[in-house]
Amino acid sequence: MAGSSIGSVFKLTTFGESHGPAIGGIIDGFPPNINIDLEFIQFELNKRRPGQSNIVTARNEPDQLLILSGVFEGKSTGTPIGFIIQNNDAKSKDYEHLKNAYRPSHADFVYDKKYGHRDYLGGGRSSARETAARVVAGAFAKLYLESFGIKVTAFVDQVGSIRMNSQENAEVDLSLIESNSVRCPHLVKASMMEELIKNVRKQGDTIGGGISCRVTGVPIGLGEPVFDKLNADIGKAILSINAVKGIEFGDGFDSIELHGSEHNDLFLPDGKTKTNHSGGIVGGISNGMPILFRVAFKPVATILKDQISITSKGDEIVLSGRGRHDACVVPRAVVIVEAMTAIVVLDHFLRSNVMKN
Amino acid sequence: MAGSSIGSVFKLTTFGESHGPAIGGIIDGFPPNINIDLEFIQFELNKRRPGQSNIVTARNEPDQLLILSGVFEGKSTGTPIGFIIQNNDAKSKDYEHLKNAYRPSHADFVYDKKYGHRDYLGGGRSSARETAARVVAGAFAKLYLESFGIKVTAFVDQVGSIRMNSQENAEVDLSLIESNSVRCPHLVKASMMEELIKNVRKQGDTIGGGISCRVTGVPIGLGEPVFDKLNADIGKAILSINAVKGIEFGDGFDSIELHGSEHNDLFLPDGKTKTNHSGGIVGGISNGMPILFRVAFKPVATILKDQISITSKGDEIVLSGRGRHDACVVPRAVVIVEAMTAIVVLDHFLRSNVMKN
Amino acid sequence: MAGSSIGSVFKLTTFGESHGPAIGGIIDGFPPNINIDLEFIQFELNKRRPGQSNIVTARNEPDQLLILSGVFEGKSTGTPIGFIIQNNDAKSKDYEHLKNAYRPSHADFVYDKKYGHRDYLGGGRSSARETAARVVAGAFAKLYLESFGIKVTAFVDQVGSIRMNSQENAEVDLSLIESNSVRCPHLVKASMMEELIKNVRKQGDTIGGGISCRVTGVPIGLGEPVFDKLNADIGKAILSINAVKGIEFGDGFDSIELHGSEHNDLFLPDGKTKTNHSGGIVGGISNGMPILFRVAFKPVATILKDQISITSKGDEIVLSGRGRHDACVVPRAVVIVEAMTAIVVLDHFLRSNVMKN
Amino acid sequence: MAGSSIGSVFKLTTFGESHGPAIGGIIDGFPPNINIDLEFIQFELNKRRPGQSNIVTARNEPDQLLILSGVFEGKSTGTPIGFIIQNNDAKSKDYEHLKNAYRPSHADFVYDKKYGHRDYLGGGRSSARETAARVVAGAFAKLYLESFGIKVTAFVDQVGSIRMNSQENAEVDLSLIESNSVRCPHLVKASMMEELIKNVRKQGDTIGGGISCRVTGVPIGLGEPVFDKLNADIGKAILSINAVKGIEFGDGFDSIELHGSEHNDLFLPDGKTKTNHSGGIVGGISNGMPILFRVAFKPVATILKDQISITSKGDEIVLSGRGRHDACVVPRAVVIVEAMTAIVVLDHFLRSNVMKN
Repeated sequence: MAGSSIGSVFKLTTFGESHGPAIGGIIDGFPPNINIDLEFIQFELNKRRPGQSNIVTARNEPDQLLILSGVFEGKSTGTPIGFIIQNNDAKSKDYEHLKNAYRPSHADFVYDKKYGHRDYLGGGRSSARETAARVVAGAFAKLYLESFGIKVTAFVDQVGSIRMNSQENAEVDLSLIESNSVRCPHLVKASMMEELIKNVRKQGDTIGGGISCRVTGVPIGLGEPVFDKLNADIGKAILSINAVKGIEFGDGFDSIELHGSEHNDLFLPDGKTKTNHSGGIVGGISNGMPILFRVAFKPVATILKDQISITSKGDEIVLSGRGRHDACVVPRAVVIVEAMTAIVVLDHFLRSNVMKN
Repeated sequence: MAGSSIGSVFKLTTFGESHGPAIGGIIDGFPPNINIDLEFIQFELNKRRPGQSNIVTARNEPDQLLILSGVFEGKSTGTPIGFIIQNNDAKSKDYEHLKNAYRPSHADFVYDKKYGHRDYLGGGRSSARETAARVVAGAFAKLYLESFGIKVTAFVDQVGSIRMNSQENAEVDLSLIESNSVRCPHLVKASMMEELIKNVRKQGDTIGGGISCRVTGVPIGLGEPVFDKLNADIGKAILSINAVKGIEFGDGFDSIELHGSEHNDLFLPDGKTKTNHSGGIVGGISNGMPILFRVAFKPVATILKDQISITSKGDEIVLSGRGRHDACVVPRAVVIVEAMTAIVVLDHFLRSNVMKN
Repeated sequence: MAGSSIGSVFKLTTFGESHGPAIGGIIDGFPPNINIDLEFIQFELNKRRPGQSNIVTARNEPDQLLILSGVFEGKSTGTPIGFIIQNNDAKSKDYEHLKNAYRPSHADFVYDKKYGHRDYLGGGRSSARETAARVVAGAFAKLYLESFGIKVTAFVDQVGSIRMNSQENAEVDLSLIESNSVRCPHLVKASMMEELIKNVRKQGDTIGGGISCRVTGVPIGLGEPVFDKLNADIGKAILSINAVKGIEFGDGFDSIELHGSEHNDLFLPDGKTKTNHSGGIVGGISNGMPILFRVAFKPVATILKDQISITSKGDEIVLSGRGRHDACVVPRAVVIVEAMTAIVVLDHFLRSNVMKN
Repeated sequence: MAGSSIGSVFKLTTFGESHGPAIGGIIDGFPPNINIDLEFIQFELNKRRPGQSNIVTARNEPDQLLILSGVFEGKSTGTPIGFIIQNNDAKSKDYEHLKNAYRPSHADFVYDKKYGHRDYLGGGRSSARETAARVVAGAFAKLYLESFGIKVTAFVDQVGSIRMNSQENAEVDLSLIESNSVRCPHLVKASMMEELIKNVRKQGDTIGGGISCRVTGVPIGLGEPVFDKLNADIGKAILSINAVKGIEFGDGFDSIELHGSEHNDLFLPDGKTKTNHSGGIVGGISNGMPILFRVAFKPVATILKDQISITSKGDEIVLSGRGRHDACVVPRAVVIVEAMTAIVVLDHFLRSNVMKN
């Protein structure tokens, strides 16, 4: 039973391999009569695009969005929004040498075993290219959410061991995110991260990264206990992104070492809280404070260094990395984290409407 | 749109407040003709039970499982399994003083705002008591999985700042988990954790904890890209447990600092890997290695120390903690983590059947 | 993949065999703060109850509803409503002779083949007793719908060849439905139907029946094209009732013989239509006119006459009917048709809320 | 909450308005490694195509299928199948006069009220053109089902009052269906139906029709009680087709007049039955006999005769029919009925795999 859809009221279904004629998706459940700013959506898509700066993969795909339905005379119609993005730069030859090989920590092996065949071109469905469809749906969701004052913002807070500390994170100036190619708003560390990524790339290697995300303006009451808690659904959406290995909300793993008397967020008379250790979600429901979470991305598996691996027959081979890939995925992943978050928050925003009588 | 169900093929729906006559659930999609060992299920339930040891809450509930359908002559029938657990020890008076107060970092406030009323008795639906139904479904799932050699095992690896290090975690003797009331298999640290919990309790305070979980014997191929990846669905299920603030798979947050050449798991000729940085899941699909993840639990919000809070009218009040609660939730949460994991793994195990032709 | 749930926003999941300790269900998604009139719900349940009159089965079950959660201080809480109805009158001996036999046109055979075992007591899950849980959920739905002026009313319009004609159906006095044991509001025909049912019963046989249903006060706009059209979802819900063999909306099968110029419903200036050939649904969406549909129930399969049948080994046997059964199912099915309709209409009523911005 | 998806394991999601650049869909859950015969799929699509014969609308659209993903080297990959069909013949001018008018018994009015705007071009999403995506998914489903010997066949059995009687229906020669433009296998009546359709068209009017469908080779055990019964899911799928007003299984509405002793299907020693009054489904589960049902299509609403109607302001206007439409929809609907049936049967075929252990 396949899993190409996410969301229950605002629902995204995607399709597409990196080597086919196009990827795309269907957004079902977007409310009608919303102004659709196509330039904004394309702008979002460009943030994920390969070839946008000197620290990301040189693979050059324009990622031009084509909307096929659901938008009429500049507004959403309430009917499903079909869209495609054509694949223009598929160099199949780059992958010929992988036809019978399994790349370490890639999905080649498990896809072959699961589906019973080898879709060796560009990673097939496991290619990160599928996230472009997520960014499109996320951009639609942002358009809607922002009209209600809800804003989703993510940024890189760590590359390798260079990390913004918790105070820097708390005092962050979000307007600086797009000021540098790493998308880290702490400019000194951004510069160090950029250097690190360039060095790692020179070595033919890759490095992991961290992304912080915050959602402001969220009304109290989003999240549906006991299973579809807001943090649970955000967690699922984020963990479904390629290369994500962890997520933590509020104080996260650090909260293990705290006492209840330290971690509890005391109320102000207006229902806000003095602190936000909980990260804006209590009992699985938004409490009106900013939603805060952090995401861990492992280093991408494709490296240019030689690696010993196996063929589909179990024979040992030496893989020499080729092709064009990112040395660090987080700069391009910022908009994907935002997109998945916006998709979930809109889904829950609309879900909470159901009960209003 | 409510969220009281989890799973798509093996599906659990739960109901129940801590103060009503009973809690319970319906398991739909459990395969027929499986021997149902009711003693095992009750045994699992007892691991979550209050009052089981000197470090957990004294609240004494026998948590007797009553199965109402779906089991006939000792075997599952393939039809829905309805079950209830009666509530015997609801001391409503313990909660009278909370009728108009919001406890810090409790779900009182958000439930009131979301649903428009105050179910002040024992936390209502937000009570951790609802997890008993999860444990029942998890025990059914374990019965099935273990007949296929799939085993889910969790243990406490951290309480406050006392933590099993990664080497201790890798070399753990799982047979020692149940040897102590903390459910930590490292006996020296278990003893230190027990001391810490007792001290924290004496202070009327609480402390956070960490749980490690591993699933062995998982066949290659569970997980449904691109959204219902196995790690994504486990992540959602775990994050839906009360007090969970984070989850990480394999090297998790530590992988941020690694290079691809360090993190990649090289293949052995049989398709196994030499290392398991990925935690048994690649591209969202199980690769046949043990699935490994870690969970962060915040300190529980109920403390006996005085706290300043607000009433539903926004007036300041002083809350003096009362009632019987856990100083540290992780010893009783071990079986809940296992249950949610087993539910997801069985769901994906059955989902993977669909495609077999 | 099992199918014990219906509805997407207002969702019912049921469990229970006729021979177990209880049947029941969980209603998820019922809005909070609605006054719950338990007497009304029990009253509805009594309409389905065996033993209520001289033309239905003598099997005597009080069908006492017990609500376990989701109602607090007389109002719904917005959390799941768990409920059970105990089985009091299970005479297992009545079924011993069927242990290895398949009754013609009963579900014995297909259940055995599908699930791999024989739950011979009272039909197991295929017993019509499971519809009691539907009636409970339907009664909750009615409580909500009626507060918005939406009313669901069904009645018997045919037993065997005794049928209310279309004019009698159009001019029906709904207040007469409960005036007779057949639940047919045309008193002359009701009396004929009652006679017919008594005669059929004397012969140890059964007879089919028809039920008309209308829903008034439905707002314009319920129904979600292109698949979850209002008529499609009502159709599914009705066809899921035991013994239903057909459903038609508006002019239904008779519309085949009409021209478009005859069938089209012309508008009045206020958007109502002069006629209602469409049965209140156009393009899968309610148009504000009464929703009209008709349901065909086949004769129930259990007869007291001898029948030749087979055992599970394929040997021929003679089955002599025993037990207590209905000679005609429609009088007790009226409330079930209403319940399933109310469940679907409420589901769509709440679904249509989602899009309101 | 929108409804653009159908199926739970084999799932179709569609998009597209008649006036946009393309319509299309995503098929999720089609098993991998199945040979995909694109010519067959296009052939099926052509059966639905306008302009194929002298009795259907002259609107000429080639309906060329373009598959974007999920098929690799001639076989299915197990990943989602994205596809589009471009709209080539959208004559927007044909609809200008309808911009502010509501056509009787069309979906204009309810769409406007539901979504808050008027998508006047070609009926927008309510256009029957969306069924082309259903036919594509149905053709994929047939490819799979036929490899297991399951065959879905529908034909026209009634146009206006010209109807194949039950004996003609039972003795039908299915090989004659495609021998005439009406798709009725009874050649004498086919000829009468063709005459009738031509006459009705000359009058600028339309006429209703009936379609019979049978599914052979179905294994015992498809269908998931108590809500997702096979007949219930087929019923929903069929009722979601434009202009369908009723469905009946086996003896259907005629079974009302039968006694149980007449309607019961007695077993043969091999588990088959001597008769098939039940239409191949008992207790919601396939019993191995052919599945039989009948569908009622109302006359299409678009007529060329003048009709009095209203504008969106409630003013009376006279609508003079224009454009190119079918006088009778059933010849082109045969393949749509088959497609929806195949989609449901495949979904249940795969669903039944889940439980196999």
